[in-house]
Amino acid sequence: MYIVPEQEIADLMTRKAAFDAVEKVFAAMAAGDAYNFPVVREAIGHEDALYGFKGGFDRAGLTLGLKAGGYWPNNLEKRGLINHQSTVFLFDPDTGKVKAMVGGNLLTALRTAAASSVSIKHLARKDAKVIGMIGAGHQAKFQLRAALEQREFEKVIGWNLHPEMLPNLQEVADEAGLPFEAVELEGLREADVIISVTSSFDAILKVDQVSPGTHIACMGTDTKGKQEVDPQLLVTADVFTDEIAQSVSIGEAQHAVAQGLIKEADVAQIGAVINGTNPGRTSDGQITLFDGTGVGLQDLAVAASVVERAVEAGIAIEVDF
Amino acid sequence: MYIVPEQEIADLMTRKAAFDAVEKVFAAMAAGDAYNFPVVREAIGHEDALYGFKGGFDRAGLTLGLKAGGYWPNNLEKRGLINHQSTVFLFDPDTGKVKAMVGGNLLTALRTAAASSVSIKHLARKDAKVIGMIGAGHQAKFQLRAALEQREFEKVIGWNLHPEMLPNLQEVADEAGLPFEAVELEGLREADVIISVTSSFDAILKVDQVSPGTHIACMGTDTKGKQEVDPQLLVTADVFTDEIAQSVSIGEAQHAVAQGLIKEADVAQIGAVINGTNPGRTSDGQITLFDGTGVGLQDLAVAASVVERAVEAGIAIEVDF
Repeated sequence: MYIVPEQEIADLMTRKAAFDAVEKVFAAMAAGDAYNFPVVREAIGHEDALYGFKGGFDRAGLTLGLKAGGYWPNNLEKRGLINHQSTVFLFDPDTGKVKAMVGGNLLTALRTAAASSVSIKHLARKDAKVIGMIGAGHQAKFQLRAALEQREFEKVIGWNLHPEMLPNLQEVADEAGLPFEAVELEGLREADVIISVTSSFDAILKVDQVSPGTHIACMGTDTKGKQEVDPQLLVTADVFTDEIAQSVSIGEAQHAVAQGLIKEADVAQIGAVINGTNPGRTSDGQITLFDGTGVGLQDLAVAASVVERAVEAGIAIEVDF
Repeated sequence: MYIVPEQEIADLMTRKAAFDAVEKVFAAMAAGDAYNFPVVREAIGHEDALYGFKGGFDRAGLTLGLKAGGYWPNNLEKRGLINHQSTVFLFDPDTGKVKAMVGGNLLTALRTAAASSVSIKHLARKDAKVIGMIGAGHQAKFQLRAALEQREFEKVIGWNLHPEMLPNLQEVADEAGLPFEAVELEGLREADVIISVTSSFDAILKVDQVSPGTHIACMGTDTKGKQEVDPQLLVTADVFTDEIAQSVSIGEAQHAVAQGLIKEADVAQIGAVINGTNPGRTSDGQITLFDGTGVGLQDLAVAASVVERAVEAGIAIEVDF
């Protein structure tokens, strides 16, 4: 079996490889070739940690396994470690033997960024020029970097509850040679693409702050109770997601569905758009919304990709297990 | 982190260490210090395999993690590999970082054997002389070896659907210098302790084949539909188990509960007997029955024990992960 330690991932993995892996597995999910297992998520009653497993199997890519780990809120302050800790384990679907162990921290950031990026490729207007960010934390930088590769953006605008974090967005805009502007939420009307990536429990973005034709990727809501946008936006918009069952229960769509504003059948798989069985955007005036909830198959897909690269590069540690 | 490959386990792990680990974690479960997570078990639609995760956390032992793997029915014939394949992953409960990866195949056999052995220690009559086996497969040898250490047995008797496998039991009896006798099911009346370890879907052992004062350990039933003994036996006997929720849903008690013969409240935790909060056996005439369903915490406990031994022995492979 192969081991790819966390510290090797940054040199091995590219945004392009993460994008390709995530796009492919979303397509496999919609084609019925790949599925996620029930998620285990436990408040273990120690260090306030949330710990669990996200598993799945991709019959097309023959990728089987899980991401294990979770959220240790005291890690940074107490130990100088990042709070989100995860490891991906891949298994050989022909034999059940473990095949690889891969550091999952950076991969999680990359696969989450890849998801909104895939949604932009398939749902945003081709002529999108302004990208608007809601949220300016660590993960927002990943989302923005990946998004900027999908369209010829000319400007980045952004809002954050704590404006002192906005330089994070400025930094990524600078890297790409684009101007950055801090805006109020009303200012997001200028955006053709909006990515929200916060840990909010209240709607931030309202209907009248979104212009016709905008594509919105809501990437922060992955738990019951979290919320980034006004549920009315999900009525106005055509709604897409990675996994419908998660979208309506723990994703951004949970609120609109619970309030009876939309039904589960109103939420479509992004993979169907990739596969061409759902037309996706059909007009320039349409608002599209991607509810990115995050699935285990994304983790397995990027991990499988990085193992391949690590083996090729001779960096994977081989253990006779 | 440490790696203990499958091939090292046999030299490192003892029945005694497995027994101690399992006894301790059963006690922790009953004391509310350790709990198992919901089990994930999936027929993945490839190689007829069943794959899944059994996780848990022992706050007392600070053992966190999961066993991942399952059953690949074509392994032996197609590839010369054993059909049950599993790997245990331990995590640091203080940080969420992976701590160890341990081959889980032999450990699973040892922890399952330890469970019936723990039940014999705490529930069988002190003067038990004859041990009866139902089932004579690979796992039966493990159960018998472990059981023989708990009482001063003088004789082994056994029954198997396919009598040509009975030499497996003969072999273990020989090792222990005990006589072995193949019997019909009626012959099990001679036994003071009975262990059933089959993959049966119908009751094998009937009420009138069990003498007063017998302790029975049912180790084969771990899935809806499986069954080893007449449900009436669970009415006659005092019933104990590793985990009540599993016992009444996928364990041997599922049938008696479904038929309304006993209630969930009639099933007690073996850990409570270990802790002394349940008296266990109170008379020589009483029949006791242990429903061993198998829990993730058992796997974590024996894995943690073997990692400790491997590190001490300088055999654990250390990887900077």
